[in-house]
Amino acid sequence: MKHIDIAKLYKTKEDFIDTKVTVCGWVRTSRDSKNMAFLELNDGTCLKHLQIVLDKSALNQIQDGILDLGAALKIEGILVKSQNGDSIEVNAEKIIILGRCPLDYPLQKKRHGLDYLRTIPHLRLRTNTFNAMLRIRDAVSIAIHEYFSANNYVWVHTPILTGSDCEGAGEVFRVTTHAWDAKFKNEDAYSKSDFFAKQAGLTVSGQLEGEMAAMALGKIYTFGPTFRAEKSNTTRHAAEFWMIEPEIAFAELEDILEVAEELIKYIIGAVLDKCETEIKLFDAHFENGLIDKLRGVLSSDFEVLTYTKAIDLLKKAKGIEFKFPIEWGLDLQTEHERYITEVIFKKPVFVTDYPMGIKSFYMKQNADGKTVAATDLLLPGIGEIIGGSQREDDYDKLLKAIKDRGMNAEDYKEYLELRKFGSCPHGGFGLGLERILLYITGIGNIRDVQLFPRTVGYMA
Amino acid sequence: MKHIDIAKLYKTKEDFIDTKVTVCGWVRTSRDSKNMAFLELNDGTCLKHLQIVLDKSALNQIQDGILDLGAALKIEGILVKSQNGDSIEVNAEKIIILGRCPLDYPLQKKRHGLDYLRTIPHLRLRTNTFNAMLRIRDAVSIAIHEYFSANNYVWVHTPILTGSDCEGAGEVFRVTTHAWDAKFKNEDAYSKSDFFAKQAGLTVSGQLEGEMAAMALGKIYTFGPTFRAEKSNTTRHAAEFWMIEPEIAFAELEDILEVAEELIKYIIGAVLDKCETEIKLFDAHFENGLIDKLRGVLSSDFEVLTYTKAIDLLKKAKGIEFKFPIEWGLDLQTEHERYITEVIFKKPVFVTDYPMGIKSFYMKQNADGKTVAATDLLLPGIGEIIGGSQREDDYDKLLKAIKDRGMNAEDYKEYLELRKFGSCPHGGFGLGLERILLYITGIGNIRDVQLFPRTVGYMA
Repeated sequence: MKHIDIAKLYKTKEDFIDTKVTVCGWVRTSRDSKNMAFLELNDGTCLKHLQIVLDKSALNQIQDGILDLGAALKIEGILVKSQNGDSIEVNAEKIIILGRCPLDYPLQKKRHGLDYLRTIPHLRLRTNTFNAMLRIRDAVSIAIHEYFSANNYVWVHTPILTGSDCEGAGEVFRVTTHAWDAKFKNEDAYSKSDFFAKQAGLTVSGQLEGEMAAMALGKIYTFGPTFRAEKSNTTRHAAEFWMIEPEIAFAELEDILEVAEELIKYIIGAVLDKCETEIKLFDAHFENGLIDKLRGVLSSDFEVLTYTKAIDLLKKAKGIEFKFPIEWGLDLQTEHERYITEVIFKKPVFVTDYPMGIKSFYMKQNADGKTVAATDLLLPGIGEIIGGSQREDDYDKLLKAIKDRGMNAEDYKEYLELRKFGSCPHGGFGLGLERILLYITGIGNIRDVQLFPRTVGYMA
Repeated sequence: MKHIDIAKLYKTKEDFIDTKVTVCGWVRTSRDSKNMAFLELNDGTCLKHLQIVLDKSALNQIQDGILDLGAALKIEGILVKSQNGDSIEVNAEKIIILGRCPLDYPLQKKRHGLDYLRTIPHLRLRTNTFNAMLRIRDAVSIAIHEYFSANNYVWVHTPILTGSDCEGAGEVFRVTTHAWDAKFKNEDAYSKSDFFAKQAGLTVSGQLEGEMAAMALGKIYTFGPTFRAEKSNTTRHAAEFWMIEPEIAFAELEDILEVAEELIKYIIGAVLDKCETEIKLFDAHFENGLIDKLRGVLSSDFEVLTYTKAIDLLKKAKGIEFKFPIEWGLDLQTEHERYITEVIFKKPVFVTDYPMGIKSFYMKQNADGKTVAATDLLLPGIGEIIGGSQREDDYDKLLKAIKDRGMNAEDYKEYLELRKFGSCPHGGFGLGLERILLYITGIGNIRDVQLFPRTVGYMA
């Protein structure tokens, strides 16, 4: 590359001061005066702009369009220390317009609302907010790889196209190569003549395949897109989102909790470390106290609390009227989860050992005959961020759980075989990437922590 | 975790010698004699087994099943230096069977063929071959993140669900929530009442969205699953595979070549460095000379050759009869590509500046009016591994290219707008993860470098 990233100029400015540099970028602001003009150039590689100083007498002329908001420029000049403070600026010697930007550019200098920005998904990425969000999304994603790599996990790519419905929730997108009006006698004929010669859908979780990999490689994780055809049009639901699902052989529930706590702290530590500028933007404009909240997570020991104890505590709660009933056997609602983390413990809480009836078929049945070795990690301000469990490793118990739920055991033949050939205690959890991004940035709508969101009725 | 990964024991054995350790794993081989028994334990965390020594007089008894191939065990014992050489072994003091393994275990001690292993996809992962392949797949994937992260690229998650068909190739899986026999008057009514209120399909490339991100963040890359509903049942085609697609603003074709060469060398260097044991397995059993081949790539300067020169050289080729015609304007076939890399240059070759007619609409039109600023990177022994280009950044030229191909310009409105608001030279390339894995491992079938392959008529 013949030009230098602005991020690199800032990081290693001492190497470049008083030398000639070439930079490229888009005009973010400009100011014209009699003898001089100034513009702030941003090339996307960092939030910070670079000030370009145009001495009109030195430059032959200032070409039309150079000072227009959004124009793409290539600039040669001398990098110097800026006069006010210890920043840097470039005294331009040559400016080339790579692409002009007309005045009807939908991103004007004023602060645009997120609602408006959602109507220009391809251009909203150029705002400071989205630059910062995407940079944090990257930092979180890379931190996840770092954590698992350092701990000897193997990243496996579980399939997106799948015939199974892990959660049995029925919210699976169908995938086909048949034409919209293809005619068949029955569903079976339709499926058999389709691309895979069977029904296909988009994965709702890589867990079942992840277990197969963990029972071979010991410690694995998945990190990929996941799909739910949920028709909920809320600020928390997306049809496509990214999930991280570690799965660990020879692990019991307490090991799962340990890994989950370590991972969350590693991610938050990495973001605070690498994205100081970006996090400050969100602290200032989206959630006051964000940085303190994140530091608080780092320094706290996560609480561990059984579901049964949680119900006891909620029943004894004073000075609050819950909308939903509190009774052993019913699922905890967001109001309950928030009360536990925000009022009682004021820190992250693992709730464990939920009633069997409200959890999935694959969870390890506890000796009490009533609960399963499952956990949800609840964070103050957002509620559940991780769901996990030890898996049922007993062939007969798992088979019964499948049959009790009216599921077809034949569909789980290979999954069951993991319990036949060298079964062992194992478990894992799922972390939604978007959910932790909402928590880390203070952004309120899942549509604003994704590049191009897909939600019911909407595909940008 | 209360037990120690076998990989960790090997890596830091000095810390553990003559101390009590707990290890878990599956029995890979066992040998019984009068007073002693021996077994090789593998926990998946590395290729290497750990030898466990059972002194029958010290242990009360050897429980039934402990020596069975595939059984899952938990073992406490003293880690000692092995008697023959400087390896390590464990003198067992306590052995717990976590899960027995019956004698009809489909993975017996003999070497199984890849064809047979494909019939037991959930169990083949437990073989040395698949452990090594998946560990290399992980190392390659992590190396890709390392390379881009170190160079200040942002990993963006381009959508899987999409309405556009980047290559216009028509090999797109349809996605719907309609029932298989849903009745509608016409395609429009079908689409409008579907989940997204429009037609949806699975992405064939993240490039178009990647360009939108690059025109905001400067340097981005995608790394995710990609789909082609190609009905080719070959050893090279899969319906689902992973792609890496960097996209760089302010870059021209020569910059793209530079990044591609650096990336390939970084990946291969990382694998040679981190996966010595695994690569040796493939050199021994899959491709003799594999390690030398990979080292050769590291030490070579990749050749750069225009398509026009390539045609000249092929026309002059002596001592070979090509099956396909060689003529300016026709695409290069595998036999041509292999001749160029294997016979003429004996190293990786970038072919550049292809005829406009055989390349995609979005490629930058060269000044000659006949060629585009595209490149394919060809490697000896495998052919094309990367395809890339500078993108057309002129609004009018791009619009004409879209219309000339009979595509609907309205579908590319946002993509075109990138050329309206601050357009600039930019480009990128696509690297197929599976393709580089075939090259690095010497494995011949794409089905054997994936966890659970999806191909026409087949979904494990």
